[in-house]
Amino acid sequence: MTIAPIFSPPTDQEIEARRDKVRMLMEERGIDVYVAANPDNVFYLTNFANYVHERPFILVMERTGTPRFVVPKLEIPHVETRRVGALDLIEYREFPAPDGERWIDSFVPLFPSGATVGVESVCPLQIYDAIPGTRRCSDIVDDARMVKTPYEKGRIAYSCELVTDAHAQLLDIAKPGATGAEVSAALTSGMSRRLLSDTPTANLLATSMFAFFQPPTVSHDPHNFTDIYMQMVEGGPHVSVINCRLNGYGAEIERTFFLGSVPEAARKPFEVMMEARHLALELTKPGAVMGEVDAKVNAVFHRAGYSDNLLHRTSHSIGVTGHEAPFLAEGYDRVIEPGMFYTIEPGVYLPGVGGFRQSDTVMTTENGNAVLTTGPESLDELTLPIS
Amino acid sequence: MTIAPIFSPPTDQEIEARRDKVRMLMEERGIDVYVAANPDNVFYLTNFANYVHERPFILVMERTGTPRFVVPKLEIPHVETRRVGALDLIEYREFPAPDGERWIDSFVPLFPSGATVGVESVCPLQIYDAIPGTRRCSDIVDDARMVKTPYEKGRIAYSCELVTDAHAQLLDIAKPGATGAEVSAALTSGMSRRLLSDTPTANLLATSMFAFFQPPTVSHDPHNFTDIYMQMVEGGPHVSVINCRLNGYGAEIERTFFLGSVPEAARKPFEVMMEARHLALELTKPGAVMGEVDAKVNAVFHRAGYSDNLLHRTSHSIGVTGHEAPFLAEGYDRVIEPGMFYTIEPGVYLPGVGGFRQSDTVMTTENGNAVLTTGPESLDELTLPIS
Repeated sequence: MTIAPIFSPPTDQEIEARRDKVRMLMEERGIDVYVAANPDNVFYLTNFANYVHERPFILVMERTGTPRFVVPKLEIPHVETRRVGALDLIEYREFPAPDGERWIDSFVPLFPSGATVGVESVCPLQIYDAIPGTRRCSDIVDDARMVKTPYEKGRIAYSCELVTDAHAQLLDIAKPGATGAEVSAALTSGMSRRLLSDTPTANLLATSMFAFFQPPTVSHDPHNFTDIYMQMVEGGPHVSVINCRLNGYGAEIERTFFLGSVPEAARKPFEVMMEARHLALELTKPGAVMGEVDAKVNAVFHRAGYSDNLLHRTSHSIGVTGHEAPFLAEGYDRVIEPGMFYTIEPGVYLPGVGGFRQSDTVMTTENGNAVLTTGPESLDELTLPIS
Repeated sequence: MTIAPIFSPPTDQEIEARRDKVRMLMEERGIDVYVAANPDNVFYLTNFANYVHERPFILVMERTGTPRFVVPKLEIPHVETRRVGALDLIEYREFPAPDGERWIDSFVPLFPSGATVGVESVCPLQIYDAIPGTRRCSDIVDDARMVKTPYEKGRIAYSCELVTDAHAQLLDIAKPGATGAEVSAALTSGMSRRLLSDTPTANLLATSMFAFFQPPTVSHDPHNFTDIYMQMVEGGPHVSVINCRLNGYGAEIERTFFLGSVPEAARKPFEVMMEARHLALELTKPGAVMGEVDAKVNAVFHRAGYSDNLLHRTSHSIGVTGHEAPFLAEGYDRVIEPGMFYTIEPGVYLPGVGGFRQSDTVMTTENGNAVLTTGPESLDELTLPIS
């Protein structure tokens, strides 16, 4: 399946449709007003991207009417430049500020008396404490984000295209002695140039790129990137990691690769990982319970004797971030729906041998799924010749 | 005053001394246990840097004994690689996870019954809600961070050196037609190379670089960086902005510069900004009330008829981030102490003319202050010849 990539910012209609989805969930859950301070949720509902710092940006939505957005005066023109959809800007002077001119002075009067107010589970305490009325923790926007709109699919498809090409470049320049620093520089500068040439107005506040690899000495420890001068070596397993958020939409691709030769001890774990991967790709379809998919995939590793070598769930989702809910994880009992995105990445980690994980960005369809990032997958293809 | 730059990671003693400062504040405020989830506070107390994502990292400190650090199993080796100071790692399986293996199952048992628990004002609601006992919002670690240790002064001094040199490079390559994209690429790649050559183990999770400029068409709107292909032009005011966190420590330098000639309408605002800047540098010394410094500096602009052209406070602090408390801001009534760091950056913004702001990173001494970033300051020096 091919999804046509989209470059342009969302339309007012797109943003309004997302807000309607949120409003419907508010109604279902008996919530009158919703408060969103998580920058990813704010971005989803306004197209305005920011990061958390001391000056709060807070979106306050009722079930009808134009959402209010509490912002520092300094940022008004910035908000105006990026925002999509109707928005009432409620400014405050600065942080900190004298009594009467603080963010809290602009924020508190926005709540009708007696309202039931929904808040995010990551809501900062100071904002939570300031909200009058009955407060109820409910991740409504995160929930609305789980099923992607056709527009979002096109944006993610574009990000998938870029990381797919960057990964091909990585395999192309792979050789003993190549360092993390040079691989990272080559791939991220290539993606930057392409992104900015395709979309000169790309939002760098909604862009981050991670493109790296781990050599066999550390690949058993999948979050160890502490030495950026780590070098590729003959043999393997090396694990490549490309996880990017490009102008507001994420994509991920990872491979387990070897240079010249495959150590004997690496053959079985690679095979078992591939069996788990194929099963995960087969099970990730509408109707399946997410936690059960993870349990079945983990069972492949248990049967192979790798119970002590598991470090993470089968999948996280990807969308307006590179890492978001829902998750294919034991203990998480939501049901997969069409139009969700998953990284499919079961992995196994053997100290002294290395790490084994391949990840692709996958979209669920009506009856199954479509893999949107592509690259070589088999041990043969991923054993690169040393020239 | 010259502060010798420091490259090396903190010692156990340095980290223990910081924790002792926190413990003393806990005692003063009647807090038995403190919970830190803000990654900057965690970094300050452990040297472990991370960013906020769905897997929580939570530091739990009592008034005596080794702090406990709740972390996902996956990250244990990463934490071990970076951490300084004694730390009991309390692992949890994954997020999400089955009952009994969730972060909350590891976290909740850490609290002695009847304890008064201190939490950050930015504590995420889900962590706050999980804490048993009496909870009290108190930004103890943020408060402890306000006065820097001699080690921290050396680290910030190093960051000041790098941004000072990057700014000299910016003025060197400034010419009509230079774009934001090329200036940013040149400066950040230069700083990256130098940082990684001086400190090959530099922590990229604690590193971010922003190096940009605004041409006169947008410099009246100081957070407008939406078009990265914006070009320098003959005349001005252009405003340069370099704010970086380099291996865990911040520094900032900004200048208002012109190419070839100074428009007549820019002379008065430049002069008034310089008067405000000199006053701010004179007033920023131990014993002064922070809000009063800002009020006096703002009065310079009010007297000049610029009351409607102020958009921000005189200063934020800088330390383990590029932007932190305390603030020289009206309504903020703390007293300046020796060993604090401030960006001194009063600014004035005139639509149709441009923005006028110069920023330096300044450390308070026993009786006054020392400016740690340097560059040309006067209108003459900052009117660059066009070759």
